[in-house]
Amino acid sequence: MSHYDKLMAHYQSIHHFNHAQAMLGWDAAANMPVGGNDARSNAMAELSVHVHRLSTQPQLADWFESAQQETLTDAQSASLREMKRQWQDATLLPEDLVQAQSKAGSKCEHAWRTQRQENDWQGFAKNWQEVVALSKEEASIRASALGTTPYDAMLDKFEPGTSSAQLDGLFDEVKTWLPELIEKALAKQASEPILLPQGSYPADTQKALGLEVMKLLQFDFDHGRLDQSVHPFCGGVPSDVRITTRYDEQDFVQALMGIVHETGHARYEQGLPKAFAGLPVGEARSMGIHESQSLFFEMQVGRSQAFIEHLSRLSQQAFQAQQDPVFAEDNLYKLYTRVQKGFIRVDADELTYPAHVILRYEIERDLINGVIHYQDVPELWDAKMQASLGLTTKDNFKDGCMQDIHWTDGAFGYFPSYTLGAMYAAQYKTKMTQTVDIDAAIRSGDLSPIFQWLSDHIWSQASLYSTDELVTRATGEVLNAAHFRKHLEGRYL
Amino acid sequence: MSHYDKLMAHYQSIHHFNHAQAMLGWDAAANMPVGGNDARSNAMAELSVHVHRLSTQPQLADWFESAQQETLTDAQSASLREMKRQWQDATLLPEDLVQAQSKAGSKCEHAWRTQRQENDWQGFAKNWQEVVALSKEEASIRASALGTTPYDAMLDKFEPGTSSAQLDGLFDEVKTWLPELIEKALAKQASEPILLPQGSYPADTQKALGLEVMKLLQFDFDHGRLDQSVHPFCGGVPSDVRITTRYDEQDFVQALMGIVHETGHARYEQGLPKAFAGLPVGEARSMGIHESQSLFFEMQVGRSQAFIEHLSRLSQQAFQAQQDPVFAEDNLYKLYTRVQKGFIRVDADELTYPAHVILRYEIERDLINGVIHYQDVPELWDAKMQASLGLTTKDNFKDGCMQDIHWTDGAFGYFPSYTLGAMYAAQYKTKMTQTVDIDAAIRSGDLSPIFQWLSDHIWSQASLYSTDELVTRATGEVLNAAHFRKHLEGRYL
Repeated sequence: MSHYDKLMAHYQSIHHFNHAQAMLGWDAAANMPVGGNDARSNAMAELSVHVHRLSTQPQLADWFESAQQETLTDAQSASLREMKRQWQDATLLPEDLVQAQSKAGSKCEHAWRTQRQENDWQGFAKNWQEVVALSKEEASIRASALGTTPYDAMLDKFEPGTSSAQLDGLFDEVKTWLPELIEKALAKQASEPILLPQGSYPADTQKALGLEVMKLLQFDFDHGRLDQSVHPFCGGVPSDVRITTRYDEQDFVQALMGIVHETGHARYEQGLPKAFAGLPVGEARSMGIHESQSLFFEMQVGRSQAFIEHLSRLSQQAFQAQQDPVFAEDNLYKLYTRVQKGFIRVDADELTYPAHVILRYEIERDLINGVIHYQDVPELWDAKMQASLGLTTKDNFKDGCMQDIHWTDGAFGYFPSYTLGAMYAAQYKTKMTQTVDIDAAIRSGDLSPIFQWLSDHIWSQASLYSTDELVTRATGEVLNAAHFRKHLEGRYL
Repeated sequence: MSHYDKLMAHYQSIHHFNHAQAMLGWDAAANMPVGGNDARSNAMAELSVHVHRLSTQPQLADWFESAQQETLTDAQSASLREMKRQWQDATLLPEDLVQAQSKAGSKCEHAWRTQRQENDWQGFAKNWQEVVALSKEEASIRASALGTTPYDAMLDKFEPGTSSAQLDGLFDEVKTWLPELIEKALAKQASEPILLPQGSYPADTQKALGLEVMKLLQFDFDHGRLDQSVHPFCGGVPSDVRITTRYDEQDFVQALMGIVHETGHARYEQGLPKAFAGLPVGEARSMGIHESQSLFFEMQVGRSQAFIEHLSRLSQQAFQAQQDPVFAEDNLYKLYTRVQKGFIRVDADELTYPAHVILRYEIERDLINGVIHYQDVPELWDAKMQASLGLTTKDNFKDGCMQDIHWTDGAFGYFPSYTLGAMYAAQYKTKMTQTVDIDAAIRSGDLSPIFQWLSDHIWSQASLYSTDELVTRATGEVLNAAHFRKHLEGRYL
């Protein structure tokens, strides 16, 4: 057996435990009764420790060296590169640091759930100080290994190969035109009448409607399902993708588009190449590319006028409300493209969302690079919110820097993925338009040409290439914010 | 750390992987889309191999020896005994035999699914021959280690400490009175009018009714849930018990009592002592004792006239059918105590069920002990069916020896558990009556005194004692078929 084959078997074995972990995580969110939590946490912690042990086995170093001497195809070389990347990531940090982080992160996140409600920045800061310090320690170790700045080393966990120099360029450009675009959109929409959902939308009916929309989006129900959880997500494994949503019986708008979004994540997973199943090279390229799929589904397809026609028809049928003007195409389109300045990222619309992300990026970059101190964050947040959206968060921590879960357990470097995803999606759209009549495909109800393009250029490519290569092969250029601007101006001006 | 403590940690670690395995198994039956099967099978096989590796680690032999020298409480000694029992069981068989069995069993079971439908005994026998041969090999290895007959060694897997000498005594006694009792019951019921369910009983309503009945039976919904699967079962872990049922929309009778049955299994699991969670001594005593709980719930509680009053009221409410005579107490009681001779064990009523089990027991005992040959089975089956129920299965293999899944993958020794469970349950009832007014408790709707007795005498005792000790401590005597006879005569004469 070649060393490459040995490595394949080893990583597929790891994948089996990750399969168990993914399903236990999904079950904990979608099914588990409250009393099951302790035993479940223990079981999942045991699996984590075991996966970590398998991922850091000493003989892997030798196997990598030997495999590199073997004759490998391009795909096998890419596969080896991705195994090695995961191995380096797993072996980089001393175990006591990982444990300290896990402990400090759990403590901070747990306390945050009540501290946020109580707007208790002082209480939160006491725990968070430790989380930040440990993340900086992690960043410094990673930076030494990668030869980057500390923040770039954290970014690399979620967006391998992407640098803050690149992000600074992209985001600074967005900042030159976004505020004005938001003002113009608001001015335009101010005079447009809109009907808000009023009434009762039973969860069962919303689910049935969601399933219809998933069919239209060609979700493969032989390899996945839709369930409910408090925080919607896409989990499971590529052969069995579990997406979730939550239903608000007073308002169908968010759950319905949430299903479109998660279906985008799901189809990426379902479309990953079977030939590399269970191997690192067969996994999604990055968080940003994952988000580019959910946001392609949500923003490029889901909120298009052509798709809203389907949503209008299907929701009228589902709720048996053919005469209800809330479900009229025109009104639904307005509901799904409404712009509103607000404090909360997760409630933000497509146009103001980048402002929320850029603010967080700038703060976490400077925090991890040691340019600012954790205590500076509330003031900086307020200043940046005023500059970007004209809102003050002074003394309003719960709607400011304490609103997200990400930082509470040290997930620094994650936020940029959201806006990178939106930008990639807009860039695919520009390129796809050259060969696919997207609007016609959506209107016809057979969206196959769109999915074929995504499958050819993104899903089937998994992690064979770096992000920049993947995007260049798909669109002819690296990420370029101009496409995002064009998309937003087209929709909101 | 003492060796006993080391062993505790080791077995709790094994338990975490078994937790994952249990939940993946439940999910595969209750949720998984068809396309998820291959990856799931691979993940579960990997977990099995890992658990086997942990269960057979060489240092365990030393730890057991050292722990035996340590000062242990009675409970710790029992705990050590049960660990050792599981370890001996895991190390007893050579790995190539286990693999051959797994392969032959899967092949035989898979082919059986179509062969049974086609009544193809010759085709089945070709695969089954191998399964029987490998089981006899297993039995012979186990028999040498335990110093028993081959069949008793197989029985020990499911009913540790129970011998076929004991079973012969019990079952031979049952055979002296059961046939006449069946005839008398049939004669009595022949003249009684009965209304069969006719109509449509939506699965959702049946589920809502089932949940009401589970509440009455004090199922702990913080530590478990009810779902659907093709074959009803009780799975999960004690802190999170997952029971399933299947709904026939033409007939509510079986699903409803199925839920009562599985709730009995579930409450045993939920009632196992927290102090021994994750340890072998904290597990259920045996299959027969497990069945004694499900059958106490089903036969002693569920089919009692007092409980049928609740079922009548609750089903009338659920189906909004207060006037429907099908749901009248008297008619429901008849439906739930109807005796019918039939070919199929899983469709059999309480009274004819033991005949099905005893027939299987006698055949598998002689088969594994080498007294008969696998080719003799159809003829023996026919002869025994004629003797016990007056039915012939000549040339009707699908309703004869090919009807059950158990033998297809070598689960010899399991069948007796069903009737042992029914007998234990009747014996508990006799004893419980001395201190608990069972009928009054059921009628009041607060069944706590019944559950308290079961908790004190069975659930909380887990595997602290041998089966005989457990039953003697609970009832003052070892298993005695007289209680079963008394119960059946009381209900059916």
